[in-house]
Amino acid sequence: MTNEIMKENEKFEILLENMDYKTIASMISKMQAVEAAEYLNSIPKNQIVNIVNLFDKEKTADIVSRLNLEKQAEVANELVSKELSNILEFIAPDDRADLFKKLTAEVQNDLLPYLTKKTREDIIRLSSYPEGSAGSVMSSNFASIINTLSIEKALEKVRHDAPSKETIYYIYVVDSDMHLIGFIFLEDLILANLESSVTSIMKTKLVFADVFEDQESVAKKIEKYDLIAIPVVNKKNQLVGIVTHDDAIDILRQEQTEDLEKFMGITGEHKAYSYLNKPSWVHFKNRAYWLISLAIVGLLSGVIVHQYSYVLRSLMIVALFMPMMADTGGNSGSQSATVIVRALAIGEITIKDWLKVIWKETKISAMLAFVLGLLAFIKVIFLTTADDIPEGFNLLNIALVIGLALALQVFTATIMGALLPIIAKKFKADPAVIASPALTTLVDISGMLIYFGLVSLLLT
Amino acid sequence: MTNEIMKENEKFEILLENMDYKTIASMISKMQAVEAAEYLNSIPKNQIVNIVNLFDKEKTADIVSRLNLEKQAEVANELVSKELSNILEFIAPDDRADLFKKLTAEVQNDLLPYLTKKTREDIIRLSSYPEGSAGSVMSSNFASIINTLSIEKALEKVRHDAPSKETIYYIYVVDSDMHLIGFIFLEDLILANLESSVTSIMKTKLVFADVFEDQESVAKKIEKYDLIAIPVVNKKNQLVGIVTHDDAIDILRQEQTEDLEKFMGITGEHKAYSYLNKPSWVHFKNRAYWLISLAIVGLLSGVIVHQYSYVLRSLMIVALFMPMMADTGGNSGSQSATVIVRALAIGEITIKDWLKVIWKETKISAMLAFVLGLLAFIKVIFLTTADDIPEGFNLLNIALVIGLALALQVFTATIMGALLPIIAKKFKADPAVIASPALTTLVDISGMLIYFGLVSLLLT
Repeated sequence: MTNEIMKENEKFEILLENMDYKTIASMISKMQAVEAAEYLNSIPKNQIVNIVNLFDKEKTADIVSRLNLEKQAEVANELVSKELSNILEFIAPDDRADLFKKLTAEVQNDLLPYLTKKTREDIIRLSSYPEGSAGSVMSSNFASIINTLSIEKALEKVRHDAPSKETIYYIYVVDSDMHLIGFIFLEDLILANLESSVTSIMKTKLVFADVFEDQESVAKKIEKYDLIAIPVVNKKNQLVGIVTHDDAIDILRQEQTEDLEKFMGITGEHKAYSYLNKPSWVHFKNRAYWLISLAIVGLLSGVIVHQYSYVLRSLMIVALFMPMMADTGGNSGSQSATVIVRALAIGEITIKDWLKVIWKETKISAMLAFVLGLLAFIKVIFLTTADDIPEGFNLLNIALVIGLALALQVFTATIMGALLPIIAKKFKADPAVIASPALTTLVDISGMLIYFGLVSLLLT
Repeated sequence: MTNEIMKENEKFEILLENMDYKTIASMISKMQAVEAAEYLNSIPKNQIVNIVNLFDKEKTADIVSRLNLEKQAEVANELVSKELSNILEFIAPDDRADLFKKLTAEVQNDLLPYLTKKTREDIIRLSSYPEGSAGSVMSSNFASIINTLSIEKALEKVRHDAPSKETIYYIYVVDSDMHLIGFIFLEDLILANLESSVTSIMKTKLVFADVFEDQESVAKKIEKYDLIAIPVVNKKNQLVGIVTHDDAIDILRQEQTEDLEKFMGITGEHKAYSYLNKPSWVHFKNRAYWLISLAIVGLLSGVIVHQYSYVLRSLMIVALFMPMMADTGGNSGSQSATVIVRALAIGEITIKDWLKVIWKETKISAMLAFVLGLLAFIKVIFLTTADDIPEGFNLLNIALVIGLALALQVFTATIMGALLPIIAKKFKADPAVIASPALTTLVDISGMLIYFGLVSLLLT
């Protein structure tokens, strides 16, 4: 299988070098559109234009709409308006609106007169919803019938509309003012008695989304109710579009990337660019926010260490284990934070469970603290040479105190990591704001206090 | 809306206290099954049994199959075998097999004789596939027709089978030995000329999964090709089941949790337990692996600091900024690792792009290094008091060297964070093994070398 793909890849590259677009076109036309798009994604726009020019408009639309959005725009900007308008007519409404938004203003203006009135209005309407709303990802291709129809008439309408509909598995029932009142499963419509009415087989327990609703909330509804598509209504409860299951997967993936990045203290929306296309200074801005904030908060741990510099002066060996305190605390805190942020996100726990979480984390962290504290004790014993220990100090005591401090640090860091996301959620903030870097810095401060506090109390 | 839910919740709790199961049952029966299950998930098993006993078997099956799997098993273990067998007949085959696996061996044995032969065989077959394979998540409810049928006969068969099928949007075409040869869209079947043959409207460009294929790979195919369901075949290319789009979302969510946890150095499969049900010592085991490994590797940074303790003795102030070096390096490395691991996972970059990635990260990290180095310089100036500086040293020089060391640390940490996931992928390992804690510890070692190297070279 992999070998076959390797061979195909080589063949493709040789054909490209020879500019044998005709053979490439025939090779590609045998593939699924999404596979063809994978080949084309990696080559320059003018070569893509040469290849897709050999397809009919429908095939071209099918393949072009599956390229990266940035590539789509590059190719579209290369085409003449008339050609582009023909292709756009065959692209699904939501993808078409996304592509349109990416075109240069000049191309947009040249293009509009060539589109059919219906397509033009559709594009303008779908492009007008705010980024990230249900309206911005919905499609206007849906099957709807009026509630007064008979099954026979309804079937006729669906048969007639079907070829142009993105999904006809749910047929939405509306009144004469397009108010959404129910839906019918396609299979129920097929199986129903031809003489009965639409309302007799209509389901009225309906899950729907508002056109301004956040796309993530819409995708979660599709996930929760196992839907193939969800109807989208405006303020007047009129059906204006649908969001489909494949869009839901894309939205959930995108949100998941943003959550992970947020958790790592990276700000900004992921959607706008892919990694390589995002300008370096945007990457810089997204990352610098937290790094700089934390460097400033980090002053505090600097001040603490400074306060205790008399400890370091009399007992240099204490300095050697500062990185261990900082790291182990940060790592164990990040772990519990990760587990809790996820458990909150997928609904395994709610904020009401905070006591149970503390109890569970207390047991877990006690075990971790014991093992890691013991390791630290052993480490101190092994790493320390005789001349590290000043007059009047005892290696065993020092190792005990450092081991104890590490155990305490692991314990508090784990509990903090678990509790802070729950507190964030309690205050209606995203639990992921307890970003791993933020926690690391907090845990550092508590760690230095514990470390130097214990050392100065018990050793000096 | 939220207020309404609050009221419903309160009402529900009062009814529970009064053991008014009848009113609860009528309240719940008006909800979607998934919503009803949300209420029941939070109450004890015997109360659930009292409530679902008031429903017919189909409704009970619908609601019970949407409870947490652990709750399902608790409830099922409470029911008598005959009752349970009746309910099982109405649960979707894949959910049924999952539930069966969770029952105690005793309940399983008592149950089997009560099941219909078809259901019994179905459960045993689906339970026999290895955890995480397509076979273990597939459903045996699919619509299939033989390739020799006419459209009219095919429609008749689909009409007849439909009520028992989980999804009939794709109708799979097989030969007389159940070999998969194509599929038909339900809408095409409905629209086709009654006299023509099945093969005339059949699509033969087919995406399918192997029954032993990893579930994540199957889910990714559903995502890539925007499928509602994917057919699953055995070694002989015979159709044995389908995996549906809603299962794909569940699988992708689960894998995403495991990826995030892996990235945070948490081992183990997520699926086995939910957070609160997972025993503390399993949590401990999953987290301890990396923490302990890293504590051991951390010895190295301890040794390095130890080697340079003469620097600390002559210039104590250097110790104060050790935590800052460790943290800032760890944070900036984790950020670039996060971005690259995600970009690799969603296919925005491939290992072939490594040079482009280095170039991009070089630019980003140069900016970050400059800003953070400058901040460190300022920090040293502000935090240092006159008696921190021994005879013969100059504050400005010290601040310059520490700022320079931090800048160099940010630069190398960022590049390492970006490069290591790509190297891991090159060696066929999961890029997420460059777990954030692992990177933190590595970056610590390089950071201590840079820090003490520069200080001893330029200052002492």
